[in-house]
Amino acid sequence: MKLIVDAFGGDNAPEEIVMGVLEGMEEFNEMSVILTGDEAVLKELLTGHGHLMPRIDIVHAPERISMDEPPVNAIKKKRNSSMVAGLELLKNKSGDGFLTCGSTGAALSGALLRVGRIKGVLRPALAPILPNGGKGVMLIDCGANMDCKPANLEQFAVMGDIYMKSVLRLDNPRIGLANVGTEDEKGNALTHEAFPLLKARNDINFVGNLEGRDVFEKADVIVSDGFAGNLLLKSIEGTAAFLMGMIKREFSQGLRSKLGAGLLMPSLKRIKKTMDYTEYGGAPLLGIDGVIIKGHGSSNAKAVRAAVRQCARMVNADVVEIIKERLSAAEL
Amino acid sequence: MKLIVDAFGGDNAPEEIVMGVLEGMEEFNEMSVILTGDEAVLKELLTGHGHLMPRIDIVHAPERISMDEPPVNAIKKKRNSSMVAGLELLKNKSGDGFLTCGSTGAALSGALLRVGRIKGVLRPALAPILPNGGKGVMLIDCGANMDCKPANLEQFAVMGDIYMKSVLRLDNPRIGLANVGTEDEKGNALTHEAFPLLKARNDINFVGNLEGRDVFEKADVIVSDGFAGNLLLKSIEGTAAFLMGMIKREFSQGLRSKLGAGLLMPSLKRIKKTMDYTEYGGAPLLGIDGVIIKGHGSSNAKAVRAAVRQCARMVNADVVEIIKERLSAAEL
Repeated sequence: MKLIVDAFGGDNAPEEIVMGVLEGMEEFNEMSVILTGDEAVLKELLTGHGHLMPRIDIVHAPERISMDEPPVNAIKKKRNSSMVAGLELLKNKSGDGFLTCGSTGAALSGALLRVGRIKGVLRPALAPILPNGGKGVMLIDCGANMDCKPANLEQFAVMGDIYMKSVLRLDNPRIGLANVGTEDEKGNALTHEAFPLLKARNDINFVGNLEGRDVFEKADVIVSDGFAGNLLLKSIEGTAAFLMGMIKREFSQGLRSKLGAGLLMPSLKRIKKTMDYTEYGGAPLLGIDGVIIKGHGSSNAKAVRAAVRQCARMVNADVVEIIKERLSAAEL
Repeated sequence: MKLIVDAFGGDNAPEEIVMGVLEGMEEFNEMSVILTGDEAVLKELLTGHGHLMPRIDIVHAPERISMDEPPVNAIKKKRNSSMVAGLELLKNKSGDGFLTCGSTGAALSGALLRVGRIKGVLRPALAPILPNGGKGVMLIDCGANMDCKPANLEQFAVMGDIYMKSVLRLDNPRIGLANVGTEDEKGNALTHEAFPLLKARNDINFVGNLEGRDVFEKADVIVSDGFAGNLLLKSIEGTAAFLMGMIKREFSQGLRSKLGAGLLMPSLKRIKKTMDYTEYGGAPLLGIDGVIIKGHGSSNAKAVRAAVRQCARMVNADVVEIIKERLSAAEL
């Protein structure tokens, strides 16, 4: 298997990206990689890893797309960027999967413009896996599609089902529709129309409407339009950060608290680990005609390593082929 | 001032409702109340509070609307319910404000059907105040309007501004638009159109687009359609509950943890207090031609007392009159 990695995408690129990739290569002996980015810098970073060099190619692409550049523009103009170079390599099958921790917008636009959709898929979706202490919960879509049609949500459900079954090996993933109440008739115009489509599919385990508070326990896949899904995702992150910040401040005030926090260190570490996205990898871009993982922009080496693992699993599980099969079926 | 209270709405009605109201009356000497519900039960509950009796009227309305009844139906059929009786009393000006901890759907439908909108208000909104350690953050709308138009969001912003200024006495409340990114051009069709409307108003302090993670720090009022707002609200509640549950489990495992937790008790109590919605009261229903507070369904006496206080403040601040003035202005 050969993975393509955008070595210059993300807040901690290229150092942490390269380090994470090297760690991933130690884990998967049969894996080779293509790193895209500034060749001289990459060669420098690879010094001392001679035993891995036969499995590493570098494609020189010195331009960088920053996090706040207008995505479509960046993809069209920066043809020699680490992101576009990686997408081109995926498109022409020089590798089996592509990992980037760069701009989400650029990754989305680039994937559509350079790699393209799977035939039959109306809209690809960004589908991060949220830590829940277990295998994780997939939120699909989380920002690729601002305004969705009911059929989009139906396809998101099927793609989420495929990922959870084939990559995370869940037997019968529970698919829920993000909504304002659990009763069947709840929701807006979009969910009212999507609900019967989801209910009618006999190839998914649709568990009905779910509220924002049910995310962590009542489903393995939460289906949503990309606008609401993104709000949901980021409010979860924001609330967790707000709470953990408050705990950190409180627990470091005064001798008594510090002593207590010291005693609770093992517990606090377990809690932190449960919530640690770096254990769960990145967000697959489902519906694109190729395996793409969008890692968190602030990924460190550990998160990159998890995303490399995830990318490899997604390639091995043949997710793209299964999506082709199931979404070209007559129902859609 | 006379408040009308639905004594039989909510999970802990009527006991906790009545207790909270009595506590509120001790706080506000000039306040009298009308309790709606089963007269015999209420009289029984009021035994021993003789000194307050001259300030309490009971309106016998023995029917109850349950949390899961179809709202419109319930409001139309259960004319002798504690909820409908309370709304009718508000409508005919027998009291200055109405508090219910009953079904949100029934409160919304009932408010529209029995009390009606303020002239000029396109859609009333449900606007809970989230605990943030300070005066709180208003999320408007949180479920009254599933599918919104840009002009609805504009009005939500103005009504939120009015509430924060007049009831919570914030000088220059920051109004943010819930969105998927902070850049001006982000969003779905609705926010794209709402953004310039909000920006063009010189009577509010519009701070632009905000992400789900910005809720607690970057604004005093978060404007959203009711679908996304409800998901946002409940995902915040769900994440906080998930985390606090995990902390509780971890901190009670083994002697070492228990000892640490004991030392941290004052800190943990402060954290709990910061997040405690019972300190912040309920959700005003803004845009209705009368003061209505929808308390949390699971309100205990303390939460009811806070909601009574909030209801009184909203009456004193003349919120309904100010909304009338500002939303009948030429701009809308």
